[in-house]
Amino acid sequence: MINVGVFGASGRMGKAVIQALTNDSDAKLAAAIVRKNSSSYGQSATENEPVHFISAEELQPDEVDVLIDFSLPEALTENLKLAEQYQLPIVVCTTGLNDKQKERLAQAAETVPVLYASNTSIGIALLEQLVGLSSAALPDADIEIFEAHHRHKKDGPSGTAISLGEAAAKGRNQRWEQVNDGIRGEGPRSDDGIGFSVMRAADIVGEHQVTLAVAGERIEIGHRVSDRKIFADGALRAGKWLQEQAPGLYSLQDTLDLQNILQRMLKR
Amino acid sequence: MINVGVFGASGRMGKAVIQALTNDSDAKLAAAIVRKNSSSYGQSATENEPVHFISAEELQPDEVDVLIDFSLPEALTENLKLAEQYQLPIVVCTTGLNDKQKERLAQAAETVPVLYASNTSIGIALLEQLVGLSSAALPDADIEIFEAHHRHKKDGPSGTAISLGEAAAKGRNQRWEQVNDGIRGEGPRSDDGIGFSVMRAADIVGEHQVTLAVAGERIEIGHRVSDRKIFADGALRAGKWLQEQAPGLYSLQDTLDLQNILQRMLKR
Amino acid sequence: MINVGVFGASGRMGKAVIQALTNDSDAKLAAAIVRKNSSSYGQSATENEPVHFISAEELQPDEVDVLIDFSLPEALTENLKLAEQYQLPIVVCTTGLNDKQKERLAQAAETVPVLYASNTSIGIALLEQLVGLSSAALPDADIEIFEAHHRHKKDGPSGTAISLGEAAAKGRNQRWEQVNDGIRGEGPRSDDGIGFSVMRAADIVGEHQVTLAVAGERIEIGHRVSDRKIFADGALRAGKWLQEQAPGLYSLQDTLDLQNILQRMLKR
Amino acid sequence: MINVGVFGASGRMGKAVIQALTNDSDAKLAAAIVRKNSSSYGQSATENEPVHFISAEELQPDEVDVLIDFSLPEALTENLKLAEQYQLPIVVCTTGLNDKQKERLAQAAETVPVLYASNTSIGIALLEQLVGLSSAALPDADIEIFEAHHRHKKDGPSGTAISLGEAAAKGRNQRWEQVNDGIRGEGPRSDDGIGFSVMRAADIVGEHQVTLAVAGERIEIGHRVSDRKIFADGALRAGKWLQEQAPGLYSLQDTLDLQNILQRMLKR
Repeated sequence: MINVGVFGASGRMGKAVIQALTNDSDAKLAAAIVRKNSSSYGQSATENEPVHFISAEELQPDEVDVLIDFSLPEALTENLKLAEQYQLPIVVCTTGLNDKQKERLAQAAETVPVLYASNTSIGIALLEQLVGLSSAALPDADIEIFEAHHRHKKDGPSGTAISLGEAAAKGRNQRWEQVNDGIRGEGPRSDDGIGFSVMRAADIVGEHQVTLAVAGERIEIGHRVSDRKIFADGALRAGKWLQEQAPGLYSLQDTLDLQNILQRMLKR
Repeated sequence: MINVGVFGASGRMGKAVIQALTNDSDAKLAAAIVRKNSSSYGQSATENEPVHFISAEELQPDEVDVLIDFSLPEALTENLKLAEQYQLPIVVCTTGLNDKQKERLAQAAETVPVLYASNTSIGIALLEQLVGLSSAALPDADIEIFEAHHRHKKDGPSGTAISLGEAAAKGRNQRWEQVNDGIRGEGPRSDDGIGFSVMRAADIVGEHQVTLAVAGERIEIGHRVSDRKIFADGALRAGKWLQEQAPGLYSLQDTLDLQNILQRMLKR
Repeated sequence: MINVGVFGASGRMGKAVIQALTNDSDAKLAAAIVRKNSSSYGQSATENEPVHFISAEELQPDEVDVLIDFSLPEALTENLKLAEQYQLPIVVCTTGLNDKQKERLAQAAETVPVLYASNTSIGIALLEQLVGLSSAALPDADIEIFEAHHRHKKDGPSGTAISLGEAAAKGRNQRWEQVNDGIRGEGPRSDDGIGFSVMRAADIVGEHQVTLAVAGERIEIGHRVSDRKIFADGALRAGKWLQEQAPGLYSLQDTLDLQNILQRMLKR
Repeated sequence: MINVGVFGASGRMGKAVIQALTNDSDAKLAAAIVRKNSSSYGQSATENEPVHFISAEELQPDEVDVLIDFSLPEALTENLKLAEQYQLPIVVCTTGLNDKQKERLAQAAETVPVLYASNTSIGIALLEQLVGLSSAALPDADIEIFEAHHRHKKDGPSGTAISLGEAAAKGRNQRWEQVNDGIRGEGPRSDDGIGFSVMRAADIVGEHQVTLAVAGERIEIGHRVSDRKIFADGALRAGKWLQEQAPGLYSLQDTLDLQNILQRMLKR
């Protein structure tokens, strides 16, 4: 049984991780960490189990096997210090880190296992790999990326859509800046241009589809989220995987272990 | 057996109509009309049947039941004159008519049946109706329109996509100009805004999908063309229908006869 | 403000209707009716408002404008009696009614407005109409119906998929029994045969897609549910509509008012 | 410039390969081989170039770099003999080989490069790999396979759909026979069961979609063919690749070189 400590435990995603842990047979909630001035501090973190929201300094390191950080960028340094001090693997799911914070991640990774994932959907992690492979295998294909989200989303294309475009460019050994055609209707795409199309409607959680087309055939690689809980599931999967790794900086992609899978698949 | 005369008979679409007629059990090619200075003039228009490319003045009106015009806007006035002179129904499939030419159509429609269709896909004609009905029946739905075409298409969204948007706006009693959100990624849609997404890849002939979404459910109404021959099929279907009508100006939508269909469907 | 009374108020769907009412600006919960021996009886039906679960005999008819019945078939007769006695419109959402119970519905409809819907998704109601219209407008099209549901669903094709097939057959003036090709892979479809394909996976709530295809083009009409709350929304929409109608037996389709919509759409 | 010899050159696929070669800047038609009693024998194989249909014994081995075999299983032994005699790589695209013929392939592969592909779509070859990888990376996912073909197809699910199912089973280390749930609607899928859904309509060339779903998210990996010419393109791509390989038995998957691609992709 893996004991999980959660930073940002009273936030939307923190709560989702705690919920995911109540249904998990391999892992359980060991520590629910919030800021000391949080209104949740001291309250019960779960309905039935005797875990309360605590502050970071109250953490009992020998009761925890891995940390999952869904708190804010501002708390990153402090959280990493704790991971280093107690030699605990840490999954960092914070979005919007600046360059200095990313350097801090790399520094921590020298002594403890660190996995950084700004999108914790395991499906999206896989999709990025599939898109990179396909783009490399079909270098002449036109590539287009469609995404759909709820009507209140402010930016477009989504960060995930851009990651998929980057994976496609990398697959073809191209620099992303040179092939990013963005969102536009007029005029044909540029040579090797990767175009985006964006739908916004109602309460769509998140859908992405990458099309690779040559004359006469096309491949469509898509992903649909119907429930935000999968982001908690993915963070948990990452945590379980990470607590068996050596110190180093990892991504969600690493947990997929595709190279070994491919080697096995190609065996006759 | 309906006898069909084709204007612009040696062009890409004219030839497609002639091809469609060779497989038709209800209609046959009666006249293949080209400009007198066309290189096809005088040649055989079909492989087996004894029909040659003729000029408009050689037309034998009693051998023809309906005219299909796939020539150029410049020839419209002359073609309509012929239809009026011989009292022949005419299907006009020319794209890019100006306002004066559209008035000329209306004038001809006072004495002969005229059907004007800039897109002769019967599927698209039906789609526009389905979209208008759905938009009216689900007035709170967010509406989004996706289209995909081959990589050399210059404009976007396609004319057909815009027609679908207009049908959606009409369904909700809105002015198209006020709800057309165009193609864009940044920022949420405007209130009641109808957004477009555009894909360009390889040799895609033409695909359109309209999504109507409310929280928790969505309807998707789509159309895919895999073979351009359907545009000839649609013109032919229009011609067969038109030669039974009274003088007047018609659209492809009229051939669908949806009102009678709906009346029949709603009967218990 | 429309006052709604709910039969079966403590069941899954009854609760969903009460939840939908808390967010509704046009209607509010007026009565939450359960069996007298229900464990909910006497409890509070909403978090904030002072409505309690009551038994049918405690109903105050002058406080209610329309009834929505999400209880069991066994309670139908009693519920209809109440509707008749108090002259209240009633939306019956019970599934699995036998012929005798359907006759009872028709009998009640002689004196009060009755709307019967075994599937209260307004999107599905619309889809059935679109499919019927399309099937009639494209009589030569091959028609295929795909549906996807969660992995525990026992029957297939879904009742909704079969309703869509029936609508398609009706559109072409065919008897459903003669064109139902069911689910099968081997052998080509029968003449005019309508085939089904069925996917079962994970927690998919419900998806249906009808394809109408001729050589070279196809129309796809689909529906996706992502949240079961839409079934409560649909029942509520039906209730609001019904309380303005004369006595008679109605369906969810009637609330769409497609005939008037079409008349308006076809106006130039 | 690679010189290509084609067996079965006057058949539908042979002609398609010759057509593909007329548009190819890296390869050209060097020999068009037919049976000596073929009505095409001695005729011109291309419109402009001076290549005629010849018999196998007239083949000039020094004019050819690689052979592509789109003839019948009966001719396989003879064709392989020629490849061995002249030490020429051979791409075998014949469908329906029996076990003995497959052994003969392996025997030839001891001295010349042999690539065997019963489906020469490079997109499908890639799809199989993507499905295997995804199935391995998401071992808890429910897997479903949908395919659509023209209305005259006799068997179902298609051979390609079954190959995709086998790839999915292999990805999860399962025996195909134990997880093949076939096509059916009633009853939930068996544990780990992979189900099929089959659509038949109009002139659809071939479409496949594999869904991998867990609660809350799903991945869809699909392929659409719009023009049969891609099967010729794939055979040609295989031929170009094969003429650089050492003797051995290869598949279309090998031409994708996914392992090197993945190694490159995973580098930071």
